[in-house]
Amino acid sequence: MSETRPQLSEARSSVGARRSEATEAAVLEAFAALLAEVGYPAITMEAVARRARAGKATVYRWWPTKAHIALSLISKAKIEIPAPRGLSLREDLIDYMTRVVGLWRGDAGLPVGLLVRHCYAEAWSDPELAAALQAERRERWTMLNAIIEAAVGRGELPPGTDLARAKDFVMSWPFYLLMTDRLPAPDEIARMVDDTLDGLRAGSSRRPSPGI
Amino acid sequence: MSETRPQLSEARSSVGARRSEATEAAVLEAFAALLAEVGYPAITMEAVARRARAGKATVYRWWPTKAHIALSLISKAKIEIPAPRGLSLREDLIDYMTRVVGLWRGDAGLPVGLLVRHCYAEAWSDPELAAALQAERRERWTMLNAIIEAAVGRGELPPGTDLARAKDFVMSWPFYLLMTDRLPAPDEIARMVDDTLDGLRAGSSRRPSPGI
Repeated sequence: MSETRPQLSEARSSVGARRSEATEAAVLEAFAALLAEVGYPAITMEAVARRARAGKATVYRWWPTKAHIALSLISKAKIEIPAPRGLSLREDLIDYMTRVVGLWRGDAGLPVGLLVRHCYAEAWSDPELAAALQAERRERWTMLNAIIEAAVGRGELPPGTDLARAKDFVMSWPFYLLMTDRLPAPDEIARMVDDTLDGLRAGSSRRPSPGI
Repeated sequence: MSETRPQLSEARSSVGARRSEATEAAVLEAFAALLAEVGYPAITMEAVARRARAGKATVYRWWPTKAHIALSLISKAKIEIPAPRGLSLREDLIDYMTRVVGLWRGDAGLPVGLLVRHCYAEAWSDPELAAALQAERRERWTMLNAIIEAAVGRGELPPGTDLARAKDFVMSWPFYLLMTDRLPAPDEIARMVDDTLDGLRAGSSRRPSPGI
């Protein structure tokens, strides 16, 4: 990435040595191992540096707090979610949600949902982390964007669909369940997606249900 | 309450002295004052006891952690939300959401949303607090229950409406916005409620939108 973004690379080298991929991998691996062994609250930056065989100053240079390391792990985990298949909004959302919820639950080994929760909690008192988290959320939304835009393209959603609101709407239920420790089982995802798509049937004074 | 619930009262007196209303009020007031002065993370049980002129042992007897005091404050704040007017599901939800979001934002002085966030975060590693929080959530849902049941009664929602899911559905968006530090402004509540009621327009393969 530094080759294609010289400005970013220059900005970084003014702060100190360039972040090496080997160091980053070692730090993330050390953090994940400590998470499994001692749990998030007991992890210290010192222990991460020791385990990664990295200098403490190096770790702090790239990750001001342990929540920043958690955020790096979250970003890395998400990259491995494949793109939607573009079948239908429903199929794509079920596919996407199944993968996101599985990732959060730790199906691939790392309990990403636990990291997400701690990152959000620490961001409440760390504006810099909050900004990084928001940037990460925007990144995640690239794929949801693709899903929703494809649905608009196929005529499944009206052309004027507000993407940002639609994404908030889609993500809020699984996020709520994550935060309240009730992640849905794999066979509950389809129903959650259907309910999301349907909304509260009828109800709205703007669009009375044809069934009532 | 101890008069009408003798069993609860007996259970409590076996733990120690009965919780006095004066002590409870002093502890909650001390906590709220410290929250405004030093912020949640810096509050200690010692400082709360000192400020409330209560014994530390007394405070710990009724509130094992500071998150439990926060939970007491949350419960107390909610009691002051008046019952819905029963006009329509939309009106009732806008009314309810406006009050809940105002409470969370701190319109009445106490930033309840901040307490809610910290309670949830601490409950992730405290099963006893998690249970208390769940009981509290059930309590809060009494009013949402009333709103949704009234809507079913008026024929605005189908008779078979799944109350638990409907409540999760209604609460998840504002909760998500609270957790991501984007509480809606008062004039955005109606639109949030309308979107919740409508769901993602069309989209579902089970109920194609008549407009497309």
